Amino acid sequence: MNDCIFCKIVKGEIPCTKLFENEKVLSFLDIMPVAKGHALVIPKAHYRTLLDMNHEDLKEVSLALQKVGAAVMKATKADGFNILQSNERAAGQEIFHVHFHIIPRFENDDISFKLGKIKSEKEELEEYQKMIKKHI
Amino acid sequence: MNDCIFCKIVKGEIPCTKLFENEKVLSFLDIMPVAKGHALVIPKAHYRTLLDMNHEDLKEVSLALQKVGAAVMKATKADGFNILQSNERAAGQEIFHVHFHIIPRFENDDISFKLGKIKSEKEELEEYQKMIKKHI
Repeated sequence: MNDCIFCKIVKGEIPCTKLFENEKVLSFLDIMPVAKGHALVIPKAHYRTLLDMNHEDLKEVSLALQKVGAAVMKATKADGFNILQSNERAAGQEIFHVHFHIIPRFENDDISFKLGKIKSEKEELEEYQKMIKKHI
Repeated sequence: MNDCIFCKIVKGEIPCTKLFENEKVLSFLDIMPVAKGHALVIPKAHYRTLLDMNHEDLKEVSLALQKVGAAVMKATKADGFNILQSNERAAGQEIFHVHFHIIPRFENDDISFKLGKIKSEKEELEEYQKMIKKHI
C-alpha cells in the first residue's frame, strides 16, 4: 500500500535496522523499543491484521519469530521473551500492516502486561464455547 | 510430560472447554480469562517454549491462531484482539508447555500492556543489530 510505513520499509524507501529477510518475511528492530533488542517480524505482503494473512505467509512469519527470537535471546542474554501481536486499534495496533513484536525480558524488568484475571465459572465457559465454536 | 497440566488436558485426564482440535493442535478457553472469550492455542506435543517447537507444529499452531482468533472476534463481537505468548518465567510464563493467548479486546477496556517505549538512537539500534545478526 502506498501510504503504509512498513510497505515503504519493505521496498527500501524508508530505512530500517534489518535483522533477517527472506522472500516472504522481513525482521528489523523497533525504533521505539520497550527493551533493547525489541524486534519486529512482518510479512512483506501487505495485510491489515493476522486474520487477513494467507497461510504461506503466516507459516513463514511463525518460523521467523522462532529464528529471530532465538537470536535476540542469545544476543541480549535475556531471561525470556514475549511475542505480542495486536489486531485493530482497540488492541493497540498503531500501524495497519500486520506485525509481531519480539520483546526480550529480564527478571524484575519494568515491563508488565496488566491483565486482570478472573476465574470463570464452568457455565460461563460453556456459554462462550458454544458461541465461538459456531464460527469455527 | 507426566506432571504437565496441558499434557494432561491433551490426554483428556483433565477437562477443558474445547474450541478446536486437529492432529497437532488443541484450543480451549482459559479458565482465568482476562476477557470473556479468552482462548489458548497449544501444540499437543510437549515443548517448553516457542524456541523448542518443531516447524510443523509451529505452522499448525499459527494457522489455528488465525482460525480461532477469527471465531473469537465474531462470537464476542470484539473490536480487536491480541496474541500474547510468553517464554520463561521472566516473561510471565506460568505453565511450561508452550501456549498462545488469544485475548479479545474492546474499545476502552481495562486491559493494558504497560510498555515504556523510548526512541532508540541509530547507533544503539545498529549495535543491537550486529549483536543479534551474529546469532541468525
